[in-house]
Amino acid sequence: MLHSPIPFVIGVAGGTASGKTTVSRRIQEAVNIANIAYLQHDNYYRDQSHLTMEQRVRTNYDHPNSLETSLLVQHVIALKTGRTVEMPLYDFSQHTRSTRTQQVIPAPIILVEGILIFTEKDLRDLMDIRIFVETDADVRFIRRLRRDISERGRTLDSVVKQYMATVRPMHLEFVEPSKRYADVIVPQGGDNRVAMEMIISRAQLLLQERRT
Amino acid sequence: MLHSPIPFVIGVAGGTASGKTTVSRRIQEAVNIANIAYLQHDNYYRDQSHLTMEQRVRTNYDHPNSLETSLLVQHVIALKTGRTVEMPLYDFSQHTRSTRTQQVIPAPIILVEGILIFTEKDLRDLMDIRIFVETDADVRFIRRLRRDISERGRTLDSVVKQYMATVRPMHLEFVEPSKRYADVIVPQGGDNRVAMEMIISRAQLLLQERRT
Repeated sequence: MLHSPIPFVIGVAGGTASGKTTVSRRIQEAVNIANIAYLQHDNYYRDQSHLTMEQRVRTNYDHPNSLETSLLVQHVIALKTGRTVEMPLYDFSQHTRSTRTQQVIPAPIILVEGILIFTEKDLRDLMDIRIFVETDADVRFIRRLRRDISERGRTLDSVVKQYMATVRPMHLEFVEPSKRYADVIVPQGGDNRVAMEMIISRAQLLLQERRT
Repeated sequence: MLHSPIPFVIGVAGGTASGKTTVSRRIQEAVNIANIAYLQHDNYYRDQSHLTMEQRVRTNYDHPNSLETSLLVQHVIALKTGRTVEMPLYDFSQHTRSTRTQQVIPAPIILVEGILIFTEKDLRDLMDIRIFVETDADVRFIRRLRRDISERGRTLDSVVKQYMATVRPMHLEFVEPSKRYADVIVPQGGDNRVAMEMIISRAQLLLQERRT
């Protein structure tokens, strides 16, 4: 086996509220956070500072075009070649990119997370392990509803409206078909102990191989 | 972590020609065959010696009732408790159980394989890792067609007839819904290098833990 010093890239995709972030957190906890450079696709929503607030609100945030994936691709390549990157941060209240950025330094594992990370070939091809978290659509909706009501002060009506208008159709058009590019599909996400042990075993072994 | 001397059970399910056997073989190659007790559900087709050949041919071999799953359950329990079992063998030309059996001795890993192994709770509950091999239905049909024509001298017509009469409807009724019980879903089966490395990493770690 080749003991390459090049970081390996794990991608974690899946629909809204499927459990992606839990999977990512479990990986980070298991292999020591210092070993991981963590990039969330959500941070790469396009800058909309040139638009009015009315225009910004009308953006379809579930469509691949709302994201500056080319920048994420550049950042993954930079980290793979040992360079530090300035990850953009998104200001969800202003619907545009924050003026602040977050420094991400190179690490043995690059963890990329997002609902749409498998839809673009350039990004997909950079990944060594592609994990798709699969949770039934009704369960995902219920989780999202709870989260949006309790954490974001949204109403039932507004959550349902957004879900039917963009979340659901974009899921069927882009997210679900991108499952085809997964190396493993993980039902139930981070609470799936057996799958998590498998993913973590592999990550730990890859880290060990890098050290020898 | 508990270092239990009890063997752990890996189940490999998936539709006809999905790549189950390749996955099982890759696991066996990777962890040393001596570490594995391998039970194929196919060997547990019911004895039909009391039936005429005409009656035997009419059996629906894609339905769970055609299999003596209770015996497989007994055998997994026996192996888990350190007892050797006599696995039945099936004579596919005579459509009944062979008079011979095959001795299977206890090993740290018990590997159970078959299209219907997740459909029965008693069997499913004995498994520590449940893997479902997922391959598109058209690709599975093409593989099965090729195999049945070249290895079993079947005609295109007879393969299609059987596929439409029992294989396909039983897949939709029993195999596909049993995917819900999988811990991990492996697209493309044994040729999926990334998923195989993950499964094998986990199996090797479990074996190491048993030794320490």
